[in-house]
Amino acid sequence: MLNLGFIRLSACRFSPFIINHSSSSSGFYSSQKQTISFALRSQMGSFTTLSQSSSRLLFRQLFEKESSTYTYLLADSFHPDKPALLIDPVDKTVDRDLSLIRKLGLKVIYAMNTHVHADHITGTGLIKDKVPGIKSVISKASGAKADVFVEPGDKITFGDLFLEVRATPGHTAGCVTYVTGDGPDQPQPRMAFTGDALLIRGCGRTDFQNGNSGQLYKSVHSQIFTLPKETFLYPGHDYKGFTVTTVGEEVLYNPRLTKDEETFISIMQNLSLAYPKMIDVAVPANVVCGLQDLESKPN
Amino acid sequence: MLNLGFIRLSACRFSPFIINHSSSSSGFYSSQKQTISFALRSQMGSFTTLSQSSSRLLFRQLFEKESSTYTYLLADSFHPDKPALLIDPVDKTVDRDLSLIRKLGLKVIYAMNTHVHADHITGTGLIKDKVPGIKSVISKASGAKADVFVEPGDKITFGDLFLEVRATPGHTAGCVTYVTGDGPDQPQPRMAFTGDALLIRGCGRTDFQNGNSGQLYKSVHSQIFTLPKETFLYPGHDYKGFTVTTVGEEVLYNPRLTKDEETFISIMQNLSLAYPKMIDVAVPANVVCGLQDLESKPN
Repeated sequence: MLNLGFIRLSACRFSPFIINHSSSSSGFYSSQKQTISFALRSQMGSFTTLSQSSSRLLFRQLFEKESSTYTYLLADSFHPDKPALLIDPVDKTVDRDLSLIRKLGLKVIYAMNTHVHADHITGTGLIKDKVPGIKSVISKASGAKADVFVEPGDKITFGDLFLEVRATPGHTAGCVTYVTGDGPDQPQPRMAFTGDALLIRGCGRTDFQNGNSGQLYKSVHSQIFTLPKETFLYPGHDYKGFTVTTVGEEVLYNPRLTKDEETFISIMQNLSLAYPKMIDVAVPANVVCGLQDLESKPN
Repeated sequence: MLNLGFIRLSACRFSPFIINHSSSSSGFYSSQKQTISFALRSQMGSFTTLSQSSSRLLFRQLFEKESSTYTYLLADSFHPDKPALLIDPVDKTVDRDLSLIRKLGLKVIYAMNTHVHADHITGTGLIKDKVPGIKSVISKASGAKADVFVEPGDKITFGDLFLEVRATPGHTAGCVTYVTGDGPDQPQPRMAFTGDALLIRGCGRTDFQNGNSGQLYKSVHSQIFTLPKETFLYPGHDYKGFTVTTVGEEVLYNPRLTKDEETFISIMQNLSLAYPKMIDVAVPANVVCGLQDLESKPN
């Protein structure tokens, strides 16, 4: 199994070939030569197949340790402007995120939230202060302030890539899941940013902010579990060191959401969780997209 | 920029086509039909292009919060046995990792270390106790015990995928970097698991375990920075919430390793770091691949 001799591999380099590529829906690349390579895809469609996404998509997963929050950076790296967006930025890590964006040569155009968070203050307000022209994005159903309100089925475009908005209420009344586009040049498998609607082997609590267990159950089953089973699911948090899961895995192994709705509601009613320690600070700040945090400080 | 109307995208699904694929070097798949899809690759070869890897490779990045250690799970998801390996498992998260491996239907064949760690106890010993037949792997230069000792240029095969071993001493005398193969069916861009030789915008300390700053400088420049600039670098730790970087980024932005060798050595000499709190427990355990941890406990 282990070849212990020294092996040089120069003979088996993969040779890409050049063709004219004109299938881009925007026509942006229609006159440009593109390097095309083959990527093998499993016929099994197995949920165990991971880590595939288009190289057009620049993608970074970032972690904020104190609240165990994931922030996601996505950009269209083929577009000359490299337009980018942040999903669920945290106030404490805004400088880290903006420094990375600068170093990668990206132009960040949207700071988006999946919902009004109760466990940390969104970085959106600080980012708006530091990046002129950036738009904050949240669902209309959230009741929060933002530059752009999205509704189910809306398409958020960055370069030739886009995210689709799916309503996944239940943790809060305004929760949405952002899903990468279904179409040519979009990442395959698809990727869904689920916020707190679905966590890896778990889900967000439903006992605050107009949470509703029955509604969350229906949201996950109708809007997330209906995605292809190889879809990568990127949660709003993880507390055990996982970074990603798939629809296939959660459909089989989520200890709460694999139960019937009645059992799920009972589980959620009996979690006996502590009062969220940040909720009284975070929610008032986050309904104004973190701007309250700025307003309370002298300039 | 934002299309606020509801848009259905069913008309633009990408249509893969079926051909006979016979380029596998092992010939394993030579008689099987494979689904081939096109993946666009940037002509820019920009270091900002991220998150592309073969769908043959199942890949998971796992985090242990206390020591901020990353463990990596890799498997060949196309192979009927789904052979897998773990890089740098941690004792405290062995049950999590093995549970994930079971759920994904993988057969883990190697538990590998990039070096003898000083900040946590490797999970290798516990894993060997729980998974009959698994082989522990470490570099011969580490001086540690293991089932298999690797040397520079060795190839570690799992199914039709493999890792190449590169010697990157300097943090310890026995540090290696594992790099995904260069060849057909291997992940593109390549991925390098650098242990503590190179961290994101940093590197491991050189003041213990036969560390040597000049040697580390040469290791990184000759063995890591010579990889294609789009190569993904996965470190042994991160303390700021980053998950991945690229060769291109570190060549430009690593605050230590972009300096000349003399300045680098001076920086490393003046870090004034505290004595590593786990070193007196971790190193004696890790030179026997964590087995000492088992031997000290009653069964």
